[in-house]
Formats: sequence, structure tokens, C-alpha cells
Amino acid sequence: MSALPRRREGRGHFLSLEGVDGAGKSTQIRLLAAALRAAGHEVLTTREPGGSPGAEEIRRLLVEGEGRRWSAETEVLLFTAARRDHLERTILPALARGALVLSDRFADSTRVYQGLARPDLAAEIERLHAAFIAREPDLTVLIDMDPALALARGRARGGAEQRFEGRGAAFQTALRAGFLALAAAHPGRIRTIDGARPEGEVAADILALVGRALA
Amino acid sequence: MSALPRRREGRGHFLSLEGVDGAGKSTQIRLLAAALRAAGHEVLTTREPGGSPGAEEIRRLLVEGEGRRWSAETEVLLFTAARRDHLERTILPALARGALVLSDRFADSTRVYQGLARPDLAAEIERLHAAFIAREPDLTVLIDMDPALALARGRARGGAEQRFEGRGAAFQTALRAGFLALAAAHPGRIRTIDGARPEGEVAADILALVGRALA
Repeated sequence: MSALPRRREGRGHFLSLEGVDGAGKSTQIRLLAAALRAAGHEVLTTREPGGSPGAEEIRRLLVEGEGRRWSAETEVLLFTAARRDHLERTILPALARGALVLSDRFADSTRVYQGLARPDLAAEIERLHAAFIAREPDLTVLIDMDPALALARGRARGGAEQRFEGRGAAFQTALRAGFLALAAAHPGRIRTIDGARPEGEVAADILALVGRALA
Repeated sequence: MSALPRRREGRGHFLSLEGVDGAGKSTQIRLLAAALRAAGHEVLTTREPGGSPGAEEIRRLLVEGEGRRWSAETEVLLFTAARRDHLERTILPALARGALVLSDRFADSTRVYQGLARPDLAAEIERLHAAFIAREPDLTVLIDMDPALALARGRARGGAEQRFEGRGAAFQTALRAGFLALAAAHPGRIRTIDGARPEGEVAADILALVGRALA
């Protein structure tokens, strides 16, 4: 903990955690937020889709109701609308007052999930991002894990993993590969952590990464 | 009425009505639908934002709640998402079975309303349209009217014209000019009708226009 720089006024940082469902993102965000707060930082934890009152309403449209409710095109527009609202109403104001923002998923999830489901939309997803979001996290931590292990852990936590299970092992394996490919393409921003270890070890590695980013 | 061609199998037509609030679009759609049905056409009347179950849910996000709930950017994304769903789930299936689709507003309203509020977004509005909608009505009827008259008529009908009144006369005048400029730019598709006359006369003119488009 002593390695973690204390807060400097007026300098916000935007951190995202990514990975397949069940990889432990929300547990790690909780542990990371506690450590950062102990070091004197103002920390805002948030999530996508959602993270602002309007974006949470869009989230309900995205996650409730039947599975094939929206086409991939409509879904990408709704995700981008939610992200824009989240950015404007939650993330940017927090960064402006110097807070550390920890988001459970951000644009990389759209790139990987929607890009995998519809590779022909990948270029349009990037174009929407450039036009309406135009912001990346300062640091993205990818918690990498075998999808079968993530599924088992998710079940053990009693989480609602229906979405995860519903898509099949091949899709989950492809998601993992998609996240790893994205990390390889953005080595400066996205850092990959082996999530298949005890959560305390994973948390220590993430904290070390974040400490270096804040230094 | 005799001038109106009877329905030909398998050939759908997509017609939109545009104009400022209070110009009488919904009255005219009702009259036009009745005349077309009397001539044997399958007619589907619809509206924007909305027109499909999903798009109606997005409409609620757009029209309910406080006025400055969404930024212009988020609003444009939500309008485009709603239009995409409306197109996929309502308009295209009806056209495929040979129906006449009459829509109270379509993309021109976004061009005029959002384009007027934020001229710097006009190019992005067109780009979203090209990427996600890529369809124009076969014929658009612009019901042109002095905004003060439209407001008075709207009040006389007891309609909920708060949105109309709330934005002020200068904005309404600019909307009218925006619609007329759009009509001038698309003379083949958008036909302007003088709406400041008795509704029966307006209806007869619209029916004649539509009859020629169906011929």
C-alpha cells in the first residue's frame, strides 16, 4: 500500500476493468476502491451499461425483455447512447474534480461482445466511438480467465449468469480471445492480469498496476 | 377519389408527413388512410418517435421526464435507435407485403429539429442516417403553416402542445424555415402543401399528390 501515490489535487484518472462474465470484475473493483480510498483518493465506482440515471434506464431496455428484442444495429446505438450519457453525467464531472473513476466495463466490452456477434459492425462501432465518446480509460485492466473457470466461479457466487451460460462455451472462448487481441493491440492502455488465482493475489497485482499508473 | 390507382400486389409505398407541431399531420394521416383504404389499399399508419414496441419504449425515454434530460448527442443516438427499430420491425415488413405505410414524421424531423438545435451535429445526423437507416420515404408531404396559426389550431384541438409552446416563436419560425429548406433541397421527394386552409382542401391536395405517386 505504501507504494500507492497519494491523491494529487485536480488530476482525475479513469480506470476500467474488463473481462468475461464471472472473471471477478466487481469483486476486484470493490477491493481496489477500498485500497485507493485508504490512500486518500476520491473514488467513484460505476458500471456499464448504466452508470448514470439515464444510462441505467437505457440499460433496462438492453438487458430486460426477450433476448432477440433488438437487432445488433439498434443495440450498438443504444449502448453508445448509454455510454455518452454515462460519460457526460458521471465520468467527466468526477474526473474534473480530480476523482479516480473505476468502471466495470467500458467501450472495450462493446468492441468485443458486439464485434464478435457481428464482425461486419466492428468498423461502425469504432466510428460511433470516435464521434460520440472519443475517450478511452487511462488504464484498462483485463482480468483474463478460462471461461469455464469464470462460469464455475460465477455459479459459486450465486450470480445471475444466465446470459453467460446461454451463449455457449465456444462464444465465451471467442470472447476471451477477443479481449486478449484487443489488449495486444493496445499494450500501453490495456494490461492483462491472470485472474485464475486467489482474489487477494489478483487484487495485489491490480493495485500495483494502478499505483504505477498514478505515479 | 376515382383518380386514385387501386392497389397493385407486392408494391409497397412509404409516405411520411412532416411539419411543425399543430400543422395537422395526424388529422391528415387519418383522412388519407381512410381514402386509401376505400381504394382497396392495405394502409399502415405509424409515427415517430415510436412505431414499434421497442421504439415506443425509447420514445418514452425521449419525451418523458425533464426537458434537459439528455444531451443533443445522446438524443440523436436514441432517435436513430428508435428509427432503426421502427424501420426493421414495422415499416420494412409492411412494405414487403405491399402495404402503404403512412408515418407521422420520419428522418426529416430529426434533421430539422435536432439540426436546428445543434447545427454542428447536422453532418453526424446524416452520417448516422446513412449508416443505420439508409431509407427515405417514397414521398414526403410537408404541411407548411405559419407557426402562430399551428399553435392556435393545436390549442383549439386541446392537444398537448407544451413542447411547442415551450420553445418560443423564434424557434418555431426557424423550424418552419428548416422544413422549407429541406423541401427545396429534395424537390423530387418532399412536396409542400399549404396547410393554412380548411382541412378538407388540404386533404384533397394530399390525396392528389399521393395518387400521382402511386400511379
